[in-house]
Amino acid sequence: MGWHYAALEERFRRIAGIQGALAILDWDTAVVMPKKAAPDRGEQLAALRRVAHDLLTHPETGEQLSAAEAETDLDPWQQANLREMRRKYRHAHSLEPALVEALARATTRCEMTWREARARADFALLAPELEEVVRLTREAAQVTGAALGLEPYDALLDAHQPDLRDAEVVPLFDRLAAELPPLVESILAHQAKMPEPLRPQGPFPPARQKELGKALMARLGFDFDAGRLDESTHPFCGGTPSDIRITTRYREDEVASALMGVLHETGHALYEAGLPKAWRGQPVGEARGIAVHESQSLIVEMQACRSPAFIRFLAGELRGTFGDDPAFAPDNLVRLYHRVERGFIRVDADEATYPLHVILRHRLERKLIAGDLAVADLPAAWNEGMRELLGIVPPDDRLGCLQDIHWPVGGFGYFPCYTLGAMLAAQLFRTAEGQIPGLLAAIGRGDFAPLLHWLREKVHGVGSKPSFAELVRNATGGPLAVEPFLEHLRARYLAR
Amino acid sequence: MGWHYAALEERFRRIAGIQGALAILDWDTAVVMPKKAAPDRGEQLAALRRVAHDLLTHPETGEQLSAAEAETDLDPWQQANLREMRRKYRHAHSLEPALVEALARATTRCEMTWREARARADFALLAPELEEVVRLTREAAQVTGAALGLEPYDALLDAHQPDLRDAEVVPLFDRLAAELPPLVESILAHQAKMPEPLRPQGPFPPARQKELGKALMARLGFDFDAGRLDESTHPFCGGTPSDIRITTRYREDEVASALMGVLHETGHALYEAGLPKAWRGQPVGEARGIAVHESQSLIVEMQACRSPAFIRFLAGELRGTFGDDPAFAPDNLVRLYHRVERGFIRVDADEATYPLHVILRHRLERKLIAGDLAVADLPAAWNEGMRELLGIVPPDDRLGCLQDIHWPVGGFGYFPCYTLGAMLAAQLFRTAEGQIPGLLAAIGRGDFAPLLHWLREKVHGVGSKPSFAELVRNATGGPLAVEPFLEHLRARYLAR
Repeated sequence: MGWHYAALEERFRRIAGIQGALAILDWDTAVVMPKKAAPDRGEQLAALRRVAHDLLTHPETGEQLSAAEAETDLDPWQQANLREMRRKYRHAHSLEPALVEALARATTRCEMTWREARARADFALLAPELEEVVRLTREAAQVTGAALGLEPYDALLDAHQPDLRDAEVVPLFDRLAAELPPLVESILAHQAKMPEPLRPQGPFPPARQKELGKALMARLGFDFDAGRLDESTHPFCGGTPSDIRITTRYREDEVASALMGVLHETGHALYEAGLPKAWRGQPVGEARGIAVHESQSLIVEMQACRSPAFIRFLAGELRGTFGDDPAFAPDNLVRLYHRVERGFIRVDADEATYPLHVILRHRLERKLIAGDLAVADLPAAWNEGMRELLGIVPPDDRLGCLQDIHWPVGGFGYFPCYTLGAMLAAQLFRTAEGQIPGLLAAIGRGDFAPLLHWLREKVHGVGSKPSFAELVRNATGGPLAVEPFLEHLRARYLAR
Repeated sequence: MGWHYAALEERFRRIAGIQGALAILDWDTAVVMPKKAAPDRGEQLAALRRVAHDLLTHPETGEQLSAAEAETDLDPWQQANLREMRRKYRHAHSLEPALVEALARATTRCEMTWREARARADFALLAPELEEVVRLTREAAQVTGAALGLEPYDALLDAHQPDLRDAEVVPLFDRLAAELPPLVESILAHQAKMPEPLRPQGPFPPARQKELGKALMARLGFDFDAGRLDESTHPFCGGTPSDIRITTRYREDEVASALMGVLHETGHALYEAGLPKAWRGQPVGEARGIAVHESQSLIVEMQACRSPAFIRFLAGELRGTFGDDPAFAPDNLVRLYHRVERGFIRVDADEATYPLHVILRHRLERKLIAGDLAVADLPAAWNEGMRELLGIVPPDDRLGCLQDIHWPVGGFGYFPCYTLGAMLAAQLFRTAEGQIPGLLAAIGRGDFAPLLHWLREKVHGVGSKPSFAELVRNATGGPLAVEPFLEHLRARYLAR
């Protein structure tokens, strides 16, 4: 192993240590921090982000990278690690500290204003600050794009899903935008012939919800000696691969969707836990991008846990935990978990309409970054897009273009990953079904070991060694495609 | 405000941010971390300690300090801040990184071995690694001492209680070593004439213990919007001034001493919370040293909460929470909380015998650092010291020189602070009683506001602006002395 490469491993191990500390502090902020600690916590996070950034962008890092790239004795994992180090360096190093700071300040301010603007359904309040965020993000995307040889919007995509280009996204999404609206129409017509599902009535004591959630997480393969389940206002999966922190929220009158939320986050957790142990703390040992991460939560939630086979199993678990609610009848529970509805809110959407919400955002954010859409025109463009894609128009901007936190915090290029992840999940699951005899039958007994074993080998354990496209091809035999996802929807929602 | 001084404030703010993050990670490690996360947590802590050390010892820090010391427009707080910055820099900068690393490795190894050696009462197992820790600590003390113009042991004291010198400690401790053994003898004779206290029988449900503990913390002035009470194996007070994390441990069959432990930690917490808000994150805004910190936990626990007036109040609270246990009779509870016993274990000792445990350790560690006592001879010297000071000899080294973690982790120069803190607590409380009419009567009603107000002004709010000696003189009118402590013991234990 080369001398310069070894020095880089040491440097990135330290950066990973700082980022692991940041992940634990983020958990602490959301789960246990007392409220008056917020200003001090801000200082702590800023100090750690700054030292991590300084370590990554230090002139020595660039010198070590160039020297290591001339070393010839690296094995394939080390070569991939060096490639990922270079990618991180390029992304971070291209931006002037002044621009990074301006973006951090602008997004912090914009997020605060967004909370108020959303509560008051007042887009005009947000507009000036969102304009500033868009302006600075565009500037950063241009600078980073120039450094990476990419178009500005591709530079943003690349930061979330390395190697993803808009030229690949557009045809996939155009196809979905053409196919999904009539498919949703058919699903709704088909659904109208079936009885409305009963909703569980409760009360569902949080302690028992937690117990059942933990039991299901353990079934999925979550290791409670290397992770936790806690509570926070906004559920998430954080922490580090050896210390995975899932959160959820309990309501006495709701159990079905909250439980599915825990299983969704467990999908993220299993990916982190399954990353190659020998490469912990190194770039090549990290998850292969946001789209792949979403595929892992969605393969667990949408493909495995919302399969009729598993829902029937879950019906027994719910009855065992909470007693005999008529809504826990297996057929009813399947109808409940397979309910499709055109709605205004993305995070409440079912898997059939969800991509339409994403496609809307993708179309708009591309134009915002390209300068082809002014922030002031966003509400009208949003409502027009909703009419076209979903056939409904939100009554106000709170249920429209004010609903998501992503843009106010500068998260452009992230939305497409949700739907690419859903597509990849369908494609992976179809492949797994073809390769694992009795996969769905096992899942129907609450046995996820065959699926997890397969995912460990094809997705989790390869870390960031392959590119995104290589990972997809190695795991599924072909490039990312729309068909498996559409076929999954037809099979689940029309063939019943 | 000078340009160089301003740059130093910025640098130390970042260091404080990193150290605040470290404090939260330490809490996380003790309270919530899953066990398999330990190796990754080690990486995180090492990375943060390293960057904090690098920021402090950076050549720029030294240049900025020299330049700022030539700036003439600093106000008294800024001057004191600069003095404290220089002190921290001197302590950290004097040591070669190789020695710092060798010490970190040796103490980590020694701590692990100590756990096993203590469990097996096997000093021979510990000896070689403790020798290495002593050798490296001595070397570091010599180097730092040379840089600070101090004797080696004084350099160790100075790291825990700035400006404290062994030449001040020795006469105080010699006086205590002469006075306390006959005083303890008298107390035990006096105590023998009274009935043995009944012990509360329980069971005491942890949830209710917690509720009562939190109610008492709130009475003392603890702000639960800026701190928490949680559980850990070894109780401590950590976190940061705006986010104070106290922990305790619950046993179904014990309530009296655990509750007093919570009140003790609350004393530490009130000090941190009362530090000058305008100087958060700056050296002058920190606590004035370990001895002063101990004085604040002990003034709350020993002076205020173990006063007969408060114990009688507490008896009512205990009855209200747990019902009528005969041990909660006020007179019995006073006898229970004022029980004096010669024992082997420091942390279980009462306030009359505790200083003898400390004096023993002080005498031994001075010799270890001076090279006048070999590690191999420690058990014999320990037992001889116990015989001389307490009149008892431990049956094995688990109850003797293996009981404390301090030396295995390199904590030399810390022990004296416990007893100096106890002395200062008595001296402060006597002064407060003289200045606040009805102080004890208020405490007897569970009203700590007058005491807290006084401590905020005299101790908490001055931060590290005065030296240790100045703080003591400003608050009590004279230098730290033995008499107030001895008089407190005579009044409490002989005059009843």
